[in-house]
Amino acid sequence: MSVLLEFAMFPTDRGESVSQEVSKVIEMIRESGASYQLTPMGTIIETDTLEQTLALVQQAYQVLEKEGCQRVYSSLKLDIRPGKDNRLAGKVASIQDKIGDVNS
Amino acid sequence: MSVLLEFAMFPTDRGESVSQEVSKVIEMIRESGASYQLTPMGTIIETDTLEQTLALVQQAYQVLEKEGCQRVYSSLKLDIRPGKDNRLAGKVASIQDKIGDVNS
Amino acid sequence: MSVLLEFAMFPTDRGESVSQEVSKVIEMIRESGASYQLTPMGTIIETDTLEQTLALVQQAYQVLEKEGCQRVYSSLKLDIRPGKDNRLAGKVASIQDKIGDVNS
Amino acid sequence: MSVLLEFAMFPTDRGESVSQEVSKVIEMIRESGASYQLTPMGTIIETDTLEQTLALVQQAYQVLEKEGCQRVYSSLKLDIRPGKDNRLAGKVASIQDKIGDVNS
Repeated sequence: MSVLLEFAMFPTDRGESVSQEVSKVIEMIRESGASYQLTPMGTIIETDTLEQTLALVQQAYQVLEKEGCQRVYSSLKLDIRPGKDNRLAGKVASIQDKIGDVNS
Repeated sequence: MSVLLEFAMFPTDRGESVSQEVSKVIEMIRESGASYQLTPMGTIIETDTLEQTLALVQQAYQVLEKEGCQRVYSSLKLDIRPGKDNRLAGKVASIQDKIGDVNS
Repeated sequence: MSVLLEFAMFPTDRGESVSQEVSKVIEMIRESGASYQLTPMGTIIETDTLEQTLALVQQAYQVLEKEGCQRVYSSLKLDIRPGKDNRLAGKVASIQDKIGDVNS
Repeated sequence: MSVLLEFAMFPTDRGESVSQEVSKVIEMIRESGASYQLTPMGTIIETDTLEQTLALVQQAYQVLEKEGCQRVYSSLKLDIRPGKDNRLAGKVASIQDKIGDVNS
């Protein structure tokens, strides 16, 4: 089973720049050992079960709660396919193959 | 604490109409006893903890898994405020009050 | 054609409460004459073409730009069906009918 | 001005795999000359104005309309900062710098 999560989670009570708070969330994800990829708009994580994915979302909030954030916003997308795995690299490669692009 | 979740979750392997599968997810939410509101683009749920919210997301997927769905997509938004409650009705009322609208 | 848009757009440089800025966006939508519905997590708009929808998104940003916002975040969902119309009321009624619920 | 858009747009009337339709959307984006990055969950585009961004969203739908898609779903996120530019590379580098990561 492949569960892909794309998510951004950030405080909205901290002003224009939130990279310090976001960095602590990313550190937690890195330390969790999950497969992940940073993007300019969020973090993409692949796990084998939805339980694992949702546990990381919970831990991400706990990081921000510990920072004292009084309002937290998060936007998330899930793409779940029971019969697949290793899509973190595979999905982009499949599109690049179709459009004849080896570099982007 | 008030955790607002807006989410849509649906199979993408079932063709143009998915209202049958979506109805089963809504029934599960209704039976859970959580405060919720149906909208034309998803369901909004308010709970007191993020754990409760994420447990409902897990159960929503289990409903679709039981239906045999081979690909499930979900888009979710969270708005979490530790020091608030009862925002399911309150947020819209606050905006309507500001724009002088009692009916929309 | 029915284009449903669910969207939230708000400044992230204004602190915990943004209901004042959001109210001005809602006022603009109300004055546009488009069919819309406020929810605790955003606004749902139905138009006949995607052009109309995207023009409203552009105008929503202009409202916040005029307020001097230095960082604006928006999360949007589109559900587009060429052969349908009047889904702002119809989608919820269809689900309620399936789950035997006339009041929620 | 930097407008970052993260978006996924896909037909829901075509069954489990939609990589053929999605590839045509990506080809259009590549040919537009906009700065973009493919991810396993969507495409991230950076433009100098919101008008340019929304024009690409419109064109993406036109690609799927031409393919005869009868239902199209899209999820989008915008991060708009008037006083910034070149964030497609910069945002990830800033986070990696903070967490002491040069490779991920």
